[in-house]
Amino acid sequence: MSGLFITFEGGEGVGKSTQARLLADYLRGRGLDVDLTREPGGTPGAEALRDFLLFGGHDLSSRAEVMAHFAARADHVDRRIAPALAAGKVVICDRFTDSTEAYQGHGLGNGDPVLLDMIARLRALVPAVPDLTLVLQVPPAIAAARMAERANGRTDRYEALDTAFHARVAAGFDMIARRDATRCRRIDASAAMDAVQDDIRTVVAPYLKRADNA
Amino acid sequence: MSGLFITFEGGEGVGKSTQARLLADYLRGRGLDVDLTREPGGTPGAEALRDFLLFGGHDLSSRAEVMAHFAARADHVDRRIAPALAAGKVVICDRFTDSTEAYQGHGLGNGDPVLLDMIARLRALVPAVPDLTLVLQVPPAIAAARMAERANGRTDRYEALDTAFHARVAAGFDMIARRDATRCRRIDASAAMDAVQDDIRTVVAPYLKRADNA
Repeated sequence: MSGLFITFEGGEGVGKSTQARLLADYLRGRGLDVDLTREPGGTPGAEALRDFLLFGGHDLSSRAEVMAHFAARADHVDRRIAPALAAGKVVICDRFTDSTEAYQGHGLGNGDPVLLDMIARLRALVPAVPDLTLVLQVPPAIAAARMAERANGRTDRYEALDTAFHARVAAGFDMIARRDATRCRRIDASAAMDAVQDDIRTVVAPYLKRADNA
Repeated sequence: MSGLFITFEGGEGVGKSTQARLLADYLRGRGLDVDLTREPGGTPGAEALRDFLLFGGHDLSSRAEVMAHFAARADHVDRRIAPALAAGKVVICDRFTDSTEAYQGHGLGNGDPVLLDMIARLRALVPAVPDLTLVLQVPPAIAAARMAERANGRTDRYEALDTAFHARVAAGFDMIARRDATRCRRIDASAAMDAVQDDIRTVVAPYLKRADNA
């Protein structure tokens, strides 16, 4: 079999990382070989680029920043995701290409068509397309409250941006989920943690059958 | 006028940086507004990426490394080269896209067609094409002697590689110069410094007339 590639997407405070971990635990409990990873990052080189991009304090042009995110992604795909999928694993990734489109293209880039076109061309150069993308969505007020709750660690450059930025990011994710409706499923993540996880497992179930039969 | 964009290319020890500086001094002496820069680097963000790539000790996949070089290039073009050309300046750049093709594509990548195709696609995303590229070439023995002479500073990851690598890089530059014969001029850089600079000025002269009349 060729593995199963599931990505979690969404803005700050939607609970992506928690839900990704819960799904990984659940699938491992069912005996599946799961690789839980994240972007930017997931390999030593890509984690170093994550640090450079999110915490380095470097000021890059929009196009340069997009390319640097894809550089990290290329390393992650080449060194970890593609080999794991080839070995038949379930790869669960917290953020992937949709985050670049939503954050850099819609959030920072304000939907600049030249930048979005560049992102589409770069995406075509990274040969890994998720089988399923779960786009977690919550009303802005809930997202803001969750972000405030966890604001005890170091804040990355996106978390520090204003509400208009986060609104553009959320709208970007919604647009992507509607456009790529075959790959993406929108999840209402405003309910309690366990209820959201139940919804996610229901959506994932048919993909597991497919993987089992492959 | 729209400026004049001249790049210097070639392997280690061909004297690129010296010749680029001599040309910049000469053109300034003629009253031209010259911006002398280099790659990877040329802007604060791109210099930080240069440090990451050349001295960081990070191990990236071939595609990731190529993308990271183009990320640095995008910042350099957006923030420095394109504005300088728009202001009518002469931009002289020590290495540009041909170096990525020669070093990453031919040297490290051994001419892998997938990697070379990716480099071509990335090049198309960075909207700056040199008016003139001077490809400096010397016999391998001379290049090795020059590299040994200057081996007093810190050695970057390319300088530390073996002679077979440097031979592939030199062959890559030669191939590029023959393929893009309108843009590229091959310069025999094995002569004395002043003689090489004279050759370069002869090649550059018609471009200055064009710039003056623009």
